[in-house]
Amino acid sequence: VIVLDQTKLPWRTSWLPLRTLDDAVAAIRDMRVRGAPLIGATAAYGVALALAEGIALDRACTALAAARPTAINLRWALDRMRAELAAGRDAFAAAAGICDDDVACNRAIGDHGLALLRQRAQPIRVLTHCNAGWLATVDGGTALAPIYAAHDAGLRVHVWVSETRPRGQGALTAWELAQHGVPHAFVADNACGHLIARGDVDVVIVGTDRTTARGDVANKIGTYLKALAARAHGVPFYVALPGSSIDWTLDDGAAIPIEERDGNEVSACAGAPVVPATTPVANPGFDVTPAALVTAFVTERGVCTPAQLKELFQR
Amino acid sequence: VIVLDQTKLPWRTSWLPLRTLDDAVAAIRDMRVRGAPLIGATAAYGVALALAEGIALDRACTALAAARPTAINLRWALDRMRAELAAGRDAFAAAAGICDDDVACNRAIGDHGLALLRQRAQPIRVLTHCNAGWLATVDGGTALAPIYAAHDAGLRVHVWVSETRPRGQGALTAWELAQHGVPHAFVADNACGHLIARGDVDVVIVGTDRTTARGDVANKIGTYLKALAARAHGVPFYVALPGSSIDWTLDDGAAIPIEERDGNEVSACAGAPVVPATTPVANPGFDVTPAALVTAFVTERGVCTPAQLKELFQR
Repeated sequence: VIVLDQTKLPWRTSWLPLRTLDDAVAAIRDMRVRGAPLIGATAAYGVALALAEGIALDRACTALAAARPTAINLRWALDRMRAELAAGRDAFAAAAGICDDDVACNRAIGDHGLALLRQRAQPIRVLTHCNAGWLATVDGGTALAPIYAAHDAGLRVHVWVSETRPRGQGALTAWELAQHGVPHAFVADNACGHLIARGDVDVVIVGTDRTTARGDVANKIGTYLKALAARAHGVPFYVALPGSSIDWTLDDGAAIPIEERDGNEVSACAGAPVVPATTPVANPGFDVTPAALVTAFVTERGVCTPAQLKELFQR
Repeated sequence: VIVLDQTKLPWRTSWLPLRTLDDAVAAIRDMRVRGAPLIGATAAYGVALALAEGIALDRACTALAAARPTAINLRWALDRMRAELAAGRDAFAAAAGICDDDVACNRAIGDHGLALLRQRAQPIRVLTHCNAGWLATVDGGTALAPIYAAHDAGLRVHVWVSETRPRGQGALTAWELAQHGVPHAFVADNACGHLIARGDVDVVIVGTDRTTARGDVANKIGTYLKALAARAHGVPFYVALPGSSIDWTLDDGAAIPIEERDGNEVSACAGAPVVPATTPVANPGFDVTPAALVTAFVTERGVCTPAQLKELFQR
């Protein structure tokens, strides 16, 4: 199993071999792979690697599930692996199946999102946060899938890419968009309210690490501020996600565990210190946007409001 | 005239002599001095230095006014210098008078803000943005004045300091608070919605670079997002300012010129590149928070709502 080490991007394309369960856990924990769908796919291969090492399934699942707490795709992938293994399927084939399904999912998300974007006047100015592109998935992306689909269909699209401090995943999005030839501009997270207020944003599209049954959306820290600004100015706020990002066991987003990450991510930026190491720091990794601020979800099954989410997935 | 070079903080205390008009213009433009009141005071001394060089008053005022477009204190200080010079006063004495008045102003702002904070249960958890402390003024600060006053009065205060990308003035605020012994934590700008949503913020206090007659508030980019989050959760949003930050010639905040700064402030952080130099970047320096989101202004004349601003200053 070979993954792209995202901590080296956009500066260097570095491939990282995963040979053991520990390799897979470390890759997820250290964010060498990141993005909810890709975390799920990596965890699936982590199970396969563990079994090849002779490690018990339960132990492997426990270690992988603990690697990152917020993205529900991690748990979803482990549950699916358990079910497929119980049905006698080969572990590596099962993991490959999860990857194939993710690609198909994202293609469908792109198609449904494209239909939404087609309704808008061009150029369509989209604001996104963090990276929910192909880097965050097996391929195709979630939030960026409609953008790629629109660009490929000849629509004029311009993307505002927010930096996404502290980890700076906006740099990954800018890198993806540049590779794909999609016009874009990189901005400080702080600029997003101003851009929306002055009428320079037509739609906001983000991904999610976990969405509850009623449609509360946990996503990278800072998403909620963009949702508030979008609502204040009547700009649609879309969340693109595969069904595997929905936590049907939760309704209230406040119950989603929010990962508190190492303070050194905040006290330094791109390796350079921004405050002395003695400065107290807090570093919540995610926030929750309530369903009331979500205009629609863009899923592999189509577009729906938060209230229609259960019906769309027939829960 | 000697100023503290704020671009070197919090790493180094470096004093910068201003000997000419050009020195003063460069110090303001390059943000070696920053903060609306301090920009005004520096501009006043810039006029005095220019006259000592034999440069015409009009030319000096034009050069200084162009150094930074958003902070209205710059224009206010130049207007006051013109008036004092017309009345035959010495230029350096007039500039010193502006400085003395700023210190007295900030003391009054601190006292009025303290009265507001006294009404709250302790610990009082304050969120602030950018730096509106003593570094941003001649002394005492605007947004931080009530915090210092509360801390000195023995109230338990905890300050959430947002990083304030792209320029990172949160590091200056953290440095000031540490020197004064005020408990605080430094967070990514993106974290502020989450902190407010989970009930960890009791009040937001910020400064302003220019507030219109009806109370629209231009302040460092990102302020507006905090105001939206505060409103969404019923958290008071206070703006601390001297009367010299009010632009009585404008009502609509949308008319305030927003400085577009160099993109390299966004594409690098603390000297380290975050995206390749080829990445397109936008960098608005300020945003406008509409008066409707302002709970109250804390001024040297007392506390008032936006609607009471004109009455308080008898305009």
